[in-house]
Amino acid sequence: MSTYHPLTIEEAISLARGIPGHFPADAALACEEIGDGNLNLVFHITDQNGGKSLIIKQALPYAKVVGESWPLSLDRARIEREALQLQYRLCPGLAPEVYAYDDRLAITVMEDLSDHTIMRKGLIDGVAYPLFAEHIGEFLARTLFFTSDLAMNPQEKKEQVKKFINPDLCKITEDLIFEDPYKPSANNNYPEYLEDEARSLREDAALHLEVALLREAFLTRAEALLHGDLHTGSIFATPESTKVIDPEFAYYGPMGFDVGAVIANLLLNYASRPGWTKDPAARRETEQRLLSMVSEIWQEFETRFRKLWDEEAKDPMAGSPGYQDVYVAKVLRDTAGFAGCKMIRRIVGLSHVADIDAIEDERLREEAQRKALAIGKHLVKHHRTVTNGEDILRLVKQAAQPFEGAVR
Amino acid sequence: MSTYHPLTIEEAISLARGIPGHFPADAALACEEIGDGNLNLVFHITDQNGGKSLIIKQALPYAKVVGESWPLSLDRARIEREALQLQYRLCPGLAPEVYAYDDRLAITVMEDLSDHTIMRKGLIDGVAYPLFAEHIGEFLARTLFFTSDLAMNPQEKKEQVKKFINPDLCKITEDLIFEDPYKPSANNNYPEYLEDEARSLREDAALHLEVALLREAFLTRAEALLHGDLHTGSIFATPESTKVIDPEFAYYGPMGFDVGAVIANLLLNYASRPGWTKDPAARRETEQRLLSMVSEIWQEFETRFRKLWDEEAKDPMAGSPGYQDVYVAKVLRDTAGFAGCKMIRRIVGLSHVADIDAIEDERLREEAQRKALAIGKHLVKHHRTVTNGEDILRLVKQAAQPFEGAVR
Repeated sequence: MSTYHPLTIEEAISLARGIPGHFPADAALACEEIGDGNLNLVFHITDQNGGKSLIIKQALPYAKVVGESWPLSLDRARIEREALQLQYRLCPGLAPEVYAYDDRLAITVMEDLSDHTIMRKGLIDGVAYPLFAEHIGEFLARTLFFTSDLAMNPQEKKEQVKKFINPDLCKITEDLIFEDPYKPSANNNYPEYLEDEARSLREDAALHLEVALLREAFLTRAEALLHGDLHTGSIFATPESTKVIDPEFAYYGPMGFDVGAVIANLLLNYASRPGWTKDPAARRETEQRLLSMVSEIWQEFETRFRKLWDEEAKDPMAGSPGYQDVYVAKVLRDTAGFAGCKMIRRIVGLSHVADIDAIEDERLREEAQRKALAIGKHLVKHHRTVTNGEDILRLVKQAAQPFEGAVR
Repeated sequence: MSTYHPLTIEEAISLARGIPGHFPADAALACEEIGDGNLNLVFHITDQNGGKSLIIKQALPYAKVVGESWPLSLDRARIEREALQLQYRLCPGLAPEVYAYDDRLAITVMEDLSDHTIMRKGLIDGVAYPLFAEHIGEFLARTLFFTSDLAMNPQEKKEQVKKFINPDLCKITEDLIFEDPYKPSANNNYPEYLEDEARSLREDAALHLEVALLREAFLTRAEALLHGDLHTGSIFATPESTKVIDPEFAYYGPMGFDVGAVIANLLLNYASRPGWTKDPAARRETEQRLLSMVSEIWQEFETRFRKLWDEEAKDPMAGSPGYQDVYVAKVLRDTAGFAGCKMIRRIVGLSHVADIDAIEDERLREEAQRKALAIGKHLVKHHRTVTNGEDILRLVKQAAQPFEGAVR
């Protein structure tokens, strides 16, 4: 198995059996390939005799979503594995443990989290996650702070930047988030009834300026090691537990990109609620809960990030009066802007979210799409004016306001 | 000669003789080591029979300026050589040609520019460089634009970022420019009579905030391949010609760092004029010429940078209305701030400039030091308010004003 090839089920089982100290010698191992099939194979291996299990994730040398024509470096498996190990070290309860890896085969053997649910599914089903804001605030604050020049020796940080240069996966983000939605592109994907929205995205000069600035930040600002794809499909959750997975897009970028990704996906679910919760009072309650989560996520992140700064900063200028405030304000502006970009691309771009696309009623689906676009555009256009966490909610409510009557 | 060792004069001659097609077979080669001795050996090799010559530059594995205790990676010779080749390709008339190199020996064989004078020396002697603003504006605009995401494929740019990760040399900048002058440090170096200024640099909270923000920009913003040390000692000049040398500090950073370096060094010379030009009218004329150069350098850079953007940008969002203006304004703010930082460190930090330190009259030297510090601090403190090229001159004149009476 020394040269790269996609593993068979049998090979995956044999490999799992070889992980030292995991399965007993008489384990009856079963294996199912459970990948969603975009970029990787995911083998779920369980011992039919007992409770133990594990996951083997293997990178494929292409993106299946657009056929084999979009080649992807297998080095991303090494990047993902190193990011996972770093995230687990910084936040042991919030990321899966890596048991083993083989970079030639582009595989990582890791903790099985199948007692958790993909958070996107839970959110669609209306599940409440009362601890999520705290957990993800902790994950964001610790992973972003401790990988930045604020907490690292700048020379070691530069070696980390080098190690996480990730051109192939960054290209996906650059194209799908910061370029395609704003021009005619074969990658775009939206129903004909949204042509007016798509046209307005292509023609809105004020929007293009803000997108250009956010794209530039993504391309140039090596602030911290990002997860890089922190949507609710990259999070396993229960009401008590949160586990962040799949950091194959990891690279050094602007902190607000990760915070914005989480917020965008809660707001996409917020925009989708009329399609899922028929009872008006129940719907409003769920919507309110989602908006509160957005607000709390920022608060939990900011509080923890500032505490880490006060207690653990190594940056010799970190104590300069006002520096922390200016820094946090920048992360907040970026958060608002990137959240907006991520909402927009999920409606008109290549890759959508089930929260909205799986709404059966076409009228409610269209309503959700337009509402998500309105919020996304409003966040992008005004991101540079945001000065505190509540400004994000204010912008969301302003953009959502015209849709309130529609669903009553 | 396959393992690294500092070359002897004889080895340098033998190596020069082997450069294909440079010297005739009967050349009578003479060699002199002419390095200023900080970080490198520089061999000047001439044919006593004819006009041909060349330079062999070899990196030393330590910084001599602080003894052998500051080790430096020899990989910086590769970084410098690759930066030189790139600069020569982008600006053939404005950088030396590389004839050959050997990365194991950390040597670069290049064009001899000894018909030029180190610009710092020329400026001290009062030489006018009427074409300098145009030349350096061209160099800055082309090297910064063409190595940025504005003109490059972002994936290729990321590989360039990786290639030019330069921790050792960046550490020198980070320590000497952005840290030591603002705290008690054994690296600082100033006469006792400047203790009041040094104390004020250590205690000025408003200044520390701006320095912290500029340091953060230096640490995180991979905008373009910088020269990284673009002072007037890294420029060979005649009134007709400009050649930029010594890019061993090259790395991906904020564009304004290079533009600011040039401007800082003209302003250091400006602050030194009363120490060099006794005649008041002649002094004022030289000062005026230097201020005009500062203004012209920004104008020449901006004009050319905008023209390149209009004509050669590959960035799909480059045409977004207003993006170019916001981008140029950011480079200008950074330019002002970095220029200020570089002036301050040359007065109280480890490494000084002859423009000021070589002034014989102690009173005039002190006056020049205080004036340079006043200008530097004013530029740093107000850099975020700068909105057009003339704002830099306005800030310089405001800070220099109290010194006008003193020298009359």
